[in-house]
Amino acid sequence: MIIDRLYEEVEKKGIVCVGLDTHLDYIPKKLKDEYQDVDRIMFEFNKRIIDNTLDIVPIYKLQIAYYEAYGIKGLMAYKRTLEYIKSAGSLSIGDIKRGDISSTAEMYGKAHFEGDFEADFITLNPYMGFDTITPYLKYLERRDKGIFVLLRTSNPGAKDIQYLKAGPQSNYIYYHIGDRLKELGQNYIGSCGYSLIGAVVGGTHIDEGEEIRNKYKNMFFLIPGYGRQGGKGKDVVIYLNKRNGGIVNSSRGIITSYKKYEDGDKNFEKYARLAVLDMREDILNGERI
Amino acid sequence: MIIDRLYEEVEKKGIVCVGLDTHLDYIPKKLKDEYQDVDRIMFEFNKRIIDNTLDIVPIYKLQIAYYEAYGIKGLMAYKRTLEYIKSAGSLSIGDIKRGDISSTAEMYGKAHFEGDFEADFITLNPYMGFDTITPYLKYLERRDKGIFVLLRTSNPGAKDIQYLKAGPQSNYIYYHIGDRLKELGQNYIGSCGYSLIGAVVGGTHIDEGEEIRNKYKNMFFLIPGYGRQGGKGKDVVIYLNKRNGGIVNSSRGIITSYKKYEDGDKNFEKYARLAVLDMREDILNGERI
Repeated sequence: MIIDRLYEEVEKKGIVCVGLDTHLDYIPKKLKDEYQDVDRIMFEFNKRIIDNTLDIVPIYKLQIAYYEAYGIKGLMAYKRTLEYIKSAGSLSIGDIKRGDISSTAEMYGKAHFEGDFEADFITLNPYMGFDTITPYLKYLERRDKGIFVLLRTSNPGAKDIQYLKAGPQSNYIYYHIGDRLKELGQNYIGSCGYSLIGAVVGGTHIDEGEEIRNKYKNMFFLIPGYGRQGGKGKDVVIYLNKRNGGIVNSSRGIITSYKKYEDGDKNFEKYARLAVLDMREDILNGERI
Repeated sequence: MIIDRLYEEVEKKGIVCVGLDTHLDYIPKKLKDEYQDVDRIMFEFNKRIIDNTLDIVPIYKLQIAYYEAYGIKGLMAYKRTLEYIKSAGSLSIGDIKRGDISSTAEMYGKAHFEGDFEADFITLNPYMGFDTITPYLKYLERRDKGIFVLLRTSNPGAKDIQYLKAGPQSNYIYYHIGDRLKELGQNYIGSCGYSLIGAVVGGTHIDEGEEIRNKYKNMFFLIPGYGRQGGKGKDVVIYLNKRNGGIVNSSRGIITSYKKYEDGDKNFEKYARLAVLDMREDILNGERI
């Protein structure tokens, strides 16, 4: 089961998920001069970071918006990067946050679990309801794909809907979603104890962190918000369940870390590696608190 | 302002929005035999439907999932169809339902309002909060782009989140969103009386239809759910504000209508036109009730 494979990778390599949010502005001039085409430039940048972090990173997350922004060429880089990650023996998350129903959701499934843009995991947006989730279950049945559903994010706007209290028990909206995901996820629990149905849980609020972690013990968390978005090691560690129950994503904090160094342009992949190691240590230190 | 242009088109051509949900299974075998490449097949199918409905359709909606499913080739057809709609002097909606924040949302803006996939309007998902909407306002400032935000959909799952009651006044979640959209939309009202910030409102519930229409008088509605999804003329007419305050989308009901006819394969574009005319009449009849 793919969640067991992810769990094992995390045990071996740590909890840092590298976000390949590959904006052209993030790419060193030197590399941009080396190649002509946008798709080649984006792919080469990603490839070198992957090559230099493969032994310390369990999974890579591609935010598809960055590739869509560069149109057909950008999506060719997206496709090629996913293929490269697979051929290198690693795992991928297509951070697509799609949220549509019935036949439309089926088409997204075809696109991101079978087609040109095939990833091991994808992220989903549940706003339209649980019929945005069920069309993907047929892939989960095959045990080789998993999903991360947006549960509670850490952006300021999260209060607009997710943090509203609703229903007879006046529960946060995100608990309404979480409880259903938990139930649905019971059918897909791997030997590691986690389900193929995971959740995206923001990393900058400690307050309810323990509660949400305890409530959903079988849910593997994708935790964004580390680094540039304000999260710190001690903020995210609470979600990890003290047994590698999640991965912590950092994107710009890793892929643009080279910009702080004089020789960064020439050695961006080296500094990406350093940033992963730093982050891993920061989180391990957080765990000791 | 683009909303004024849409309003005028609706006045001239009626309220039927054709949804180009172009699945390969929906395309006549004859056309598939004629061309080799998937992108060419999809584009030709779309082009012929557009050519045959241009005078009775104010705007075309492309559900991007259908194109993503066919990968790079599919997205080439998506791009080319949007370009063709523009060159034909008509309007387009990129039905992308993206819902992400800050720099990621900016990248989606770049992709779908500037880049290869430029459309006149796009659909957005507000689940992560209003910081999923604000990054697009810079395009609205220029007056030549508009958005439709998911407000209340008509799928069964809509009850899972949208129909929950929340907050001190125990209002439906969709009213929490609608009230904020209304406020935000005040800055972008065209001479037609409608805002560049519109909403997606499902067409199969009459009950609260009148309430939602009265509450948001300046909001132009994109109304899906007609035809295959169960909506009827009398169900959708309530949302139109008796002054063309919305467009009603039908996808399969129009583009696959040829399948009912013996000579459908050869004349699919003719039957698409017929389906638009039928639908327009059904809705006009609904209005007389």
